Amino acid sequence: MEVARVLHMNKGSGDTSYAKNSTVQSKILSIAKPMMDEAILKIVEKSPESMGIADLGCSAGPNCLGVIMEIVDVIHARCCTLSQSSPELRLFLNDLFNNDFNNIFASLPTFYNQIRKEKGSHFGPCYISAVPGSFYGRLFPTNSLHFIHSSSSLHWLSQVPKGLNSNNESGVEVINKGKLYLSKSSSECVVEAYLDQFEKDFGVFLSSRAEELVTNGRMVLSFMGRTSPDPTADESCYQWELLATALMAMVSEGLIEEEKVDSFNAPYYAPCPEEIKKVVEKEGSFVLENVEAFPVDWDGGAVDYDHHQYTTVAELSRARGQRVAKTIRAVVESMLGDHFGLNFGCESKIEVGIRVRKTVVSVELLCSKCRQKVMNLIAKIEGITSIVLDPSKNTVTVIGEADPVCIIRKVRKFRKTATIVSIGPPKEEKKDEKNKEVIISYPSTTCKKCDVWYVVAEDAYTHYCSIM
Amino acid sequence: MEVARVLHMNKGSGDTSYAKNSTVQSKILSIAKPMMDEAILKIVEKSPESMGIADLGCSAGPNCLGVIMEIVDVIHARCCTLSQSSPELRLFLNDLFNNDFNNIFASLPTFYNQIRKEKGSHFGPCYISAVPGSFYGRLFPTNSLHFIHSSSSLHWLSQVPKGLNSNNESGVEVINKGKLYLSKSSSECVVEAYLDQFEKDFGVFLSSRAEELVTNGRMVLSFMGRTSPDPTADESCYQWELLATALMAMVSEGLIEEEKVDSFNAPYYAPCPEEIKKVVEKEGSFVLENVEAFPVDWDGGAVDYDHHQYTTVAELSRARGQRVAKTIRAVVESMLGDHFGLNFGCESKIEVGIRVRKTVVSVELLCSKCRQKVMNLIAKIEGITSIVLDPSKNTVTVIGEADPVCIIRKVRKFRKTATIVSIGPPKEEKKDEKNKEVIISYPSTTCKKCDVWYVVAEDAYTHYCSIM
Repeated sequence: MEVARVLHMNKGSGDTSYAKNSTVQSKILSIAKPMMDEAILKIVEKSPESMGIADLGCSAGPNCLGVIMEIVDVIHARCCTLSQSSPELRLFLNDLFNNDFNNIFASLPTFYNQIRKEKGSHFGPCYISAVPGSFYGRLFPTNSLHFIHSSSSLHWLSQVPKGLNSNNESGVEVINKGKLYLSKSSSECVVEAYLDQFEKDFGVFLSSRAEELVTNGRMVLSFMGRTSPDPTADESCYQWELLATALMAMVSEGLIEEEKVDSFNAPYYAPCPEEIKKVVEKEGSFVLENVEAFPVDWDGGAVDYDHHQYTTVAELSRARGQRVAKTIRAVVESMLGDHFGLNFGCESKIEVGIRVRKTVVSVELLCSKCRQKVMNLIAKIEGITSIVLDPSKNTVTVIGEADPVCIIRKVRKFRKTATIVSIGPPKEEKKDEKNKEVIISYPSTTCKKCDVWYVVAEDAYTHYCSIM
Repeated sequence: MEVARVLHMNKGSGDTSYAKNSTVQSKILSIAKPMMDEAILKIVEKSPESMGIADLGCSAGPNCLGVIMEIVDVIHARCCTLSQSSPELRLFLNDLFNNDFNNIFASLPTFYNQIRKEKGSHFGPCYISAVPGSFYGRLFPTNSLHFIHSSSSLHWLSQVPKGLNSNNESGVEVINKGKLYLSKSSSECVVEAYLDQFEKDFGVFLSSRAEELVTNGRMVLSFMGRTSPDPTADESCYQWELLATALMAMVSEGLIEEEKVDSFNAPYYAPCPEEIKKVVEKEGSFVLENVEAFPVDWDGGAVDYDHHQYTTVAELSRARGQRVAKTIRAVVESMLGDHFGLNFGCESKIEVGIRVRKTVVSVELLCSKCRQKVMNLIAKIEGITSIVLDPSKNTVTVIGEADPVCIIRKVRKFRKTATIVSIGPPKEEKKDEKNKEVIISYPSTTCKKCDVWYVVAEDAYTHYCSIM
């Protein structure tokens, strides 16, 4: 899997979009805010005429411009307090090539109006631009940035660690079977491969940023991590275990192939503080001012706030499970779609009662009478919600709970040559939503948590890297 | 109409997308290329360490990165000839907030690979970013650009000229009725309003760019224009006349309201050389090196190349008409959609033979038996290609040539309370394409042409504007 080409949060603003399912990431932003503010203030105090600020892995949805507005607010407030004119702000939004930048840009007119209204026309000016590309490499000209921010992004690796498929006499041997990430059963070489990839990637990240930052530039980075020295600890693996369970349920239903699950490994790593410190020291361009860990609920606390609407523990637990499932789905669906084939709807045993299917039948639809006949025959079958004829392709698409065998038998009464082209889940539509979710049992009593780490770093040297 | 929020070329890469219908704009780019190359060479000769280059109104599709690649090619070739190392290239893509930047970014990995492969890893580096916003105002930091390019964009005004609706005793009086732009019948005040808006906008454009360009920076601008001093000359109004004819045909069919056509005016102006010179001289920051006019066929020559496939003049003429219609549609559809209401499919009398309609019926679909009954009843009607039941909304959506009255009568046999929710054109899908196009009669023998103007300008002064 080419991570830089494939990975993106779910686009648009629909029910399964990242924009609608990013409360966890919003929570992480709010926890990190005091550190971000402090770093910005230290830069503003030096009264730069122009400030280059980058948000790496900005994604889309409300969090993206929300962070930028917070940064602008802090600068504006500080300049007012110091009675100094505000610097020209060059604000750069970065994410991978497939990120939904259109979604962000559509909100920009409102954003610019808000700045003008709240801060006056003399503030700034602010120039917002988008810089698509992988942050594991150079993104910006040398010495062009003063402050770099990244939230909920640096746990993504540049690639799936190499060495997870080892060659032996009988061909390629897949290791880490049935798992998507590290787990208690992962072998030593899998653990090493993941750590190696993290160290390499984070090192490249730091040396790239060191070139781009001005002397005394600052970074605040927050990403998924763990407190335990054990990389297979529950706190950093739990969400992948949940997803693996859902995928294996789909294997047992015959919806996806077990080999596909075996060969999928997440390009992800949740490091512990010691691992972070080691890379920062080895790379040598940055001084680590502060590393802190905060626990974050996987449902972002969103369900708790409304828990009065649930009358039983089971109901609350289910609601939280759905929230967690939606959060995970909004993040991983692009990768699963790429690995398991297009139009992969995360359909699982748990939520699907009666299965709604889409059956496409090939049958000659020569004239109006033919079409009417076929329409009539299929309409007699029980459990059908949609029949669509396409005379240009000579196909009939039937959606419903009806048995595909029953459908083809009916059509063959009219034309013996009719064949089934495909049977599959109905195309994703809002109304089918409930049949297509990864629903994971998520007990509210023994709530699992994931940790998030902050790294506040300062580029205390020139842009030349040196090993300390 | 808020132009900056509304205007964008048709998104995606489907049949009606700008990406698939921009041969005219590609032709214009190729005509302007020698001038662009010359301007770039003059900058490269001064051996800048870093070059800021902006393409304003970049749009999406192949033309967008095509221009950037041409610019990069010229710089690379020149640096090789001079045996000098290439400058760091900061390449900025600008267009309005609703432009399809996602489409451009998806092609960037291939673009970067191509540069690395053809020019080696020591070339550049190239940093490509997107800067959404209106070029009628500041977009970039002061003194940050060396070269500005804009093609097929500056004929768009920042707004519909004010004063086209004049207030009198009986309320707002709409002038320029039944026309979308200037025409032979336009009154003097309409002509003046358009010229005023152009002068104001182009002046703001020049003064904004003057701040952003370094001293001795250069611009090459190409946009729709005219040779005649008369702003209502055919050469600059013809495409709007064609579109007005198509819209009035839709009025006579009852598809849109005549008042809506009367109140639509294009935010567009095609200036003559004298008008351009006047604004440049008045604004005073730039020296005009060259102004040239070139005629460009509205079908971009695309149909001519394949004309051997057409056996009659009528067929060729029709093919060219379709090409012209698609070109215009890809450009104006966002504005028409905004003005005439969402989901406006440019359906016209000329192409529609038997009309395919979408009829939505409201009927209670309580149980499986109810659904089967309704399905059965509708399926008996001739001329239906699709029946979709939505039990959650108690609606049936029927697509086909069948009479909606016939459909509701059938359904009422089952439930008397059934009602028609809506009748309209089927949702845009590829297979319905031919029913939805603005098809304009375009005689190949007396082919109308539009002119395009080039302005090659040099910022010969400091970034302070001065009136010459």
